[in-house]
Amino acid sequence: MTTDLVAAVDIGGTKIAGALVTGEGELLHRAQRPTPARESAAAVLRAVTDVVTRLTESGDWSRVRALGIGSAGPLDARLGSVSPVNIPVWRDFPLVEGVRGVVGELPVTLVGDGAAIAAGEHWRGAARGRRNALCMVVSTGVGGGLIVDDRLYAGPTGNAGHIGHISVDFNGDLCPCGGRGCVERIASGTNIARYALAAGWRPADQGGDATTAGVAAAAAAGDPVAREAFDRSARALAAGIAATATLVELETVVIGGGVSQAGEVLFAPVRRALAEYATLPYVQGIDVVPAQLGTDAGLVGAAAASWRESGTFLSRGEAGN
Amino acid sequence: MTTDLVAAVDIGGTKIAGALVTGEGELLHRAQRPTPARESAAAVLRAVTDVVTRLTESGDWSRVRALGIGSAGPLDARLGSVSPVNIPVWRDFPLVEGVRGVVGELPVTLVGDGAAIAAGEHWRGAARGRRNALCMVVSTGVGGGLIVDDRLYAGPTGNAGHIGHISVDFNGDLCPCGGRGCVERIASGTNIARYALAAGWRPADQGGDATTAGVAAAAAAGDPVAREAFDRSARALAAGIAATATLVELETVVIGGGVSQAGEVLFAPVRRALAEYATLPYVQGIDVVPAQLGTDAGLVGAAAASWRESGTFLSRGEAGN
Repeated sequence: MTTDLVAAVDIGGTKIAGALVTGEGELLHRAQRPTPARESAAAVLRAVTDVVTRLTESGDWSRVRALGIGSAGPLDARLGSVSPVNIPVWRDFPLVEGVRGVVGELPVTLVGDGAAIAAGEHWRGAARGRRNALCMVVSTGVGGGLIVDDRLYAGPTGNAGHIGHISVDFNGDLCPCGGRGCVERIASGTNIARYALAAGWRPADQGGDATTAGVAAAAAAGDPVAREAFDRSARALAAGIAATATLVELETVVIGGGVSQAGEVLFAPVRRALAEYATLPYVQGIDVVPAQLGTDAGLVGAAAASWRESGTFLSRGEAGN
Repeated sequence: MTTDLVAAVDIGGTKIAGALVTGEGELLHRAQRPTPARESAAAVLRAVTDVVTRLTESGDWSRVRALGIGSAGPLDARLGSVSPVNIPVWRDFPLVEGVRGVVGELPVTLVGDGAAIAAGEHWRGAARGRRNALCMVVSTGVGGGLIVDDRLYAGPTGNAGHIGHISVDFNGDLCPCGGRGCVERIASGTNIARYALAAGWRPADQGGDATTAGVAAAAAAGDPVAREAFDRSARALAAGIAATATLVELETVVIGGGVSQAGEVLFAPVRRALAEYATLPYVQGIDVVPAQLGTDAGLVGAAAASWRESGTFLSRGEAGN
C-alpha cells in the first residue's frame, strides 16, 4: 500500500482523539488522551502533540500528506487559533503553530467541531449525496455545521453553522455565551433535564437516573412532564432548523450526539414542530435523519476537510466524484 | 457604443419596473407599470410583458444579452415560477415561460427580491468590496439576501437570506406565513406602528401621522413609547442578524427600505442590541450600514445576477475585478 493518508485530530473538552485516515474514510492507528482542560495551556497542547506523535510512530506516517484538526470552538481558522468554551486554559491559543514542532511543514487544516462533523457526515454518513444540509450535535451543548452546494461551508473563521447559539427567544433566558434565548440554552441535554426536574419530574422510576437519558426513558414510557421537556427542546431545535433553512436552504438535517440517542422521543417532536415553523414553500419537506458516524464523525470530518483543502483526491464511494 | 447590456425587471406588489443596465450598473430606458395584484394572473403577466416590450422598443435592445428578473417571493428559480405573497393571483406562476414570448431565447435569470437587492448593493452599493454580507429591507415587510464568499448566494430556489421569516420568538405570535415569532411579525414597519398604537402612543403631535414615519418622528422627538416601539423592532432585527452571522459569518449588514429612513432612530438601537445578541468572538464587530441604492436596488441587483449568470463581464468599479 502506497496510497496517501491524512492525519486527523478531534479536540473536545473531554478527550483528544487522533487517527490516520484513508481516502475512503477508513480510520487507522488510533490514539487518544484525556483533555487536561483546566490544567494549563501547555498541558493541553502536550496532550495534542502526544496524540500526533503516537500517529507519527506508526509505520504509515510516511504516507501522510496533511493534518486536519477539528476543534471545539470558537476558533479563528485564519489565525490558526482556538478559544474553546470547554477548554478555559486555551484563549486565542495558537494551535496550528503549536503542532508544527511535530508535523513540520505538513499542510494543516483547522475547522470547528461542528464543521468537521458536517464534513464527515457529508463524506461518509447520513448527508452523503445531499447538496444542502445542516448537521447537528445535540448533547450537553448544541453545535452544527453546514453543507452548501455540495461542499463544507465553514466560513472565514471556521465557525459557520453554529446553530446552538442563535436566539429563538429574543426575550428569553441569558445564555452563558452572553446572548439570550439561544437554541442550546433551551434544547441541550443539560437543559432538558433541568427543565424536567424543575417541572416536577422525579427520576425514581428510572433507577434514579436524573440525566437526559433518564428523562428520555420516562418520556418513552409516557411520562407527560418528561415528554413536555423533550417537546420544548424539539420546538427550539425546529425553530433553529427552520431559521437555518430559511436563510441558506436545506434539503436534509442530520442530528447526532447523546440526546439523539433518544430516537423518536426526540425526532418525532422535532419533525412535528418543523412542520409548524418551516412553512414557506421552499423550506417544506426537509428530511430529518439520525447521524451515522457516531463518535468518529469529528475525526472523519477533520480528515475530509483536510483532504479537500490539500487538493487530494477524496473518494465519495457510491455518491461518485 | 456597442457594449453589451442586460435587461432588468423588478416585480413587487405595487409596481413592476424595468430598465436596460450597463456593465457599470447605469440604468437606461426605464419603464414601469402598476401591479394589478388582485386582477388575474394574465393581467399581472401582461404588465410584465408590457414593461419588457417597452424596453425592446428602445434603440439599444440589440445590445441586450440577457434578462434578469428579481421578484417578490417566494419563488422557485429552478422551475422559473413565482408565488409572491403580495400578488395573490400568482401561485406557482410560470413567469420565465411567460416572458419567452417577448424575449425569445435570451438567457433569463430569476432571483428573489431580497437576493436581487443583495446583488445590487454588493455590486454598486453599500456592500461593495465586502466578502460576507446580509442586505436587508425593512419596510411593510422584512426581506434580505446574502453575499457569501464575495458572491450572491441565492440558494437552489432563489429564496436564501429571507431573514424576515426566521423565528426569534418561538413561543410568539402567529405570523401570516404560518410560522411563529418571525422577525417580520415583530420588526416590520406595520408592526412598529401597531405596537406603538397598542402601547398608548397617539399620533396627534405628528399631524395625525399614524404610520411608521409618524412613530419615527415621535421617537426622534423623545417620545418614550415610540422609542420603545423602535427598540423592540431593533431587538428582533438584531437577534435575526446575530443568528445569520452565527450561521454564515458576516462582516457587514446593509439595511434599506422605508423604515431605515428613520436613520439613527432605528440604527442606534439595532447596533446596541446586536452587541447583546452577537457575543461569540467571530460575530462581534459587524458593520451595520444604510443601503445606498434606494428603490433602484432591485433593478441593479437583477442586472447583477443576470450579468453573473450569463458569464458576462461585470465591472466592480473601484473594488476591482
